Amino acid sequence: MKTVVLKFGGTSVGSIDRIKKVCKIIAFYKKKKYKVIVVSSAMSGVTNELVSKSKLISDNFDRAEYDTLVSTGEQVSCALIAGRLKHIGFKSRSWTSWQLPILTIGPHTSARINSVRIKGLKNYIRSGGIPVITGFQGVNENLRITTIGRSGSDATAIMLAKFIKADECIIFTDVDGVYTTDPRQYKKAKKIKKIFYDEMLEMASLGSKVMQPTSVQDAKINNIDIEVKSSFVSNSGTLITGYKKSFSDQIITGISSTKNDAKITVVGVKDRPGVAASIFKPLSKNLINVDMVVQNISLDGRETDLTFTIKSEDLKKTERLIKQNKNISFKKLSFDKGVSKVSIIGVGMITTPGITYRMFQALALKKINILVISTSEIKISVLVSAKHVKRAVAALHKEFKLE
Amino acid sequence: MKTVVLKFGGTSVGSIDRIKKVCKIIAFYKKKKYKVIVVSSAMSGVTNELVSKSKLISDNFDRAEYDTLVSTGEQVSCALIAGRLKHIGFKSRSWTSWQLPILTIGPHTSARINSVRIKGLKNYIRSGGIPVITGFQGVNENLRITTIGRSGSDATAIMLAKFIKADECIIFTDVDGVYTTDPRQYKKAKKIKKIFYDEMLEMASLGSKVMQPTSVQDAKINNIDIEVKSSFVSNSGTLITGYKKSFSDQIITGISSTKNDAKITVVGVKDRPGVAASIFKPLSKNLINVDMVVQNISLDGRETDLTFTIKSEDLKKTERLIKQNKNISFKKLSFDKGVSKVSIIGVGMITTPGITYRMFQALALKKINILVISTSEIKISVLVSAKHVKRAVAALHKEFKLE
Repeated sequence: MKTVVLKFGGTSVGSIDRIKKVCKIIAFYKKKKYKVIVVSSAMSGVTNELVSKSKLISDNFDRAEYDTLVSTGEQVSCALIAGRLKHIGFKSRSWTSWQLPILTIGPHTSARINSVRIKGLKNYIRSGGIPVITGFQGVNENLRITTIGRSGSDATAIMLAKFIKADECIIFTDVDGVYTTDPRQYKKAKKIKKIFYDEMLEMASLGSKVMQPTSVQDAKINNIDIEVKSSFVSNSGTLITGYKKSFSDQIITGISSTKNDAKITVVGVKDRPGVAASIFKPLSKNLINVDMVVQNISLDGRETDLTFTIKSEDLKKTERLIKQNKNISFKKLSFDKGVSKVSIIGVGMITTPGITYRMFQALALKKINILVISTSEIKISVLVSAKHVKRAVAALHKEFKLE
Repeated sequence: MKTVVLKFGGTSVGSIDRIKKVCKIIAFYKKKKYKVIVVSSAMSGVTNELVSKSKLISDNFDRAEYDTLVSTGEQVSCALIAGRLKHIGFKSRSWTSWQLPILTIGPHTSARINSVRIKGLKNYIRSGGIPVITGFQGVNENLRITTIGRSGSDATAIMLAKFIKADECIIFTDVDGVYTTDPRQYKKAKKIKKIFYDEMLEMASLGSKVMQPTSVQDAKINNIDIEVKSSFVSNSGTLITGYKKSFSDQIITGISSTKNDAKITVVGVKDRPGVAASIFKPLSKNLINVDMVVQNISLDGRETDLTFTIKSEDLKKTERLIKQNKNISFKKLSFDKGVSKVSIIGVGMITTPGITYRMFQALALKKINILVISTSEIKISVLVSAKHVKRAVAALHKEFKLE
């Protein structure tokens, strides 16, 4: 008998009708003779409402109390789901994270799951019951409620799947899978049937919002197959799994792109060891995420230009921090707000030569200028003018036969 | 250093502004060098909203899940209160019933507090912290959340006061105390400064909605002084305490009255042992509360009339149950819907003769007919036509010098 963890996101349980619908999905798996474990997020909107209340109480609301506050959202949705499952004739009960318990380490609002005690849970499943477990939260060694950050319900599902040795973990959400590129931006985007963890990691960190990178990483480390699918339509979803050679001869799996990037060039900085670190240290301290970095070759060995990208909304702050920085000297700062990063992702590129060339050629044919290039083992990213993004995605989608 | 339990009801914490206000009250006691323990209800409206959701999920919503569901209300208010207390510079934390724990026995939705583990709590208070504890709930031996019925937050406060050996328990609510009679019905009603547990019990069970009788009983058993006062205005409240001889020479402490009573007379029933039991058994089974009962003297030793009062809303059901009852025979049933019970309450009447006479005389002078009489040690109740209630209360209020 297979064991499956079914995780439902906020929109999937966003209303009483949605909860009833979700219980039908759960019933479907139970009737297929699966051992079923349910993990639920809070009903959509509820967490934000609680957060708003905390902000009205204090502009610096205590983090432990924040966790106590917002964790009630999942307790509500899980009680309602279990209540509904009982109503339609199943044995079911809600299980809060402290009841299991799900033990976490690390600070409030961003704790990590360390262990899950599964003894009681296992007995309950064996007796035919459907446990409905609060996602997103745990309890620390002081018996205080913790939360594991936004989208933490995915992490709960994956860690439960790990500890209970589940055969599968299905993440139900409001999209029906992972696409070759953003379907709202590019009509010909196709749903990906199977994607490797590493590819999904690149997709996730590059702006595909289906799953948080940390959750994909958790799944990869623990080798848990994840299916992402919709709770609104009964289409098949996307399987996120480990690399198997026989898997596919697809070279590129997906294309992602960003919006709202900005490019900064620090012109004429001293070309000496540690200069990049001196520039980036205050940015990092201020939680500004530096993405692509290029340092030009120093012609005279004394001065160089450093170019990097950040989110547009961080531009003003970044400018101020660089100008205030007494540890560096430079000739001038130049900015470009209207840039986007376009990336192609696929484990296939490791063993296939010429991908970089094909990418650059496809863009050149469309007269799209490449501003910055950055590569990893399974990803090539280029920075282009934001106005070219759609055309760049279309050209690459076609070049790598994703339609 | 005195220890005080401060309990806030739903309207007292009914909004963010109210929570800020309540924290000022808590700060006031803390600054007076009290050791302060806070117990809070859910923000008003929240519990009802959760209950509505459960009803939409199932017309027979599981009781264990109901407790898990509604108990989130207090968790939210306590986290917000503790967060606010920290914001204004105090050491504070929320404490859920399972964190202490507050252990309960008995069924879900109507559990009773059995014990409170106070070790951690005591250390925390000693270190200067203000614990903010979820009212209305506990945890049972299976580690599942239980609730102790509506108004259960009072019970939490009183049991905490008992186990922590508090000097005082202050119940903050939306009225500023207990009145000699309902001030909305009778303008000359006066706030009672001190009232004995037994008197309060009679007042509570007779319709004064300030406190639930069970909570007063808990306070009496554990000999805990309770002050009922408003969190909206800074007036002094009413002290509910144990009988001390020196206390007062007031004979009557308060007057209460009911609405919506009905009187039923079963005419011509066989006058044999057990006939009253035969009539009342099916009513009790159907949760119909029989209040005043009078059996007329049987003139011929064979037949008698039995008169009793119930809530008006139970009239139809009662009529049906009596007519269906095959264990009794009677000549006819007569009904009177428009009746009310007016009661005078006071421990003083135990040692003061003539109170009954004074009550009947006061009503007779106002030409108010007494339909049924019922007495206990510290209470005399009379049934009158509902249209006379206001005049009856006024006459008695004056007679016993309550203004």
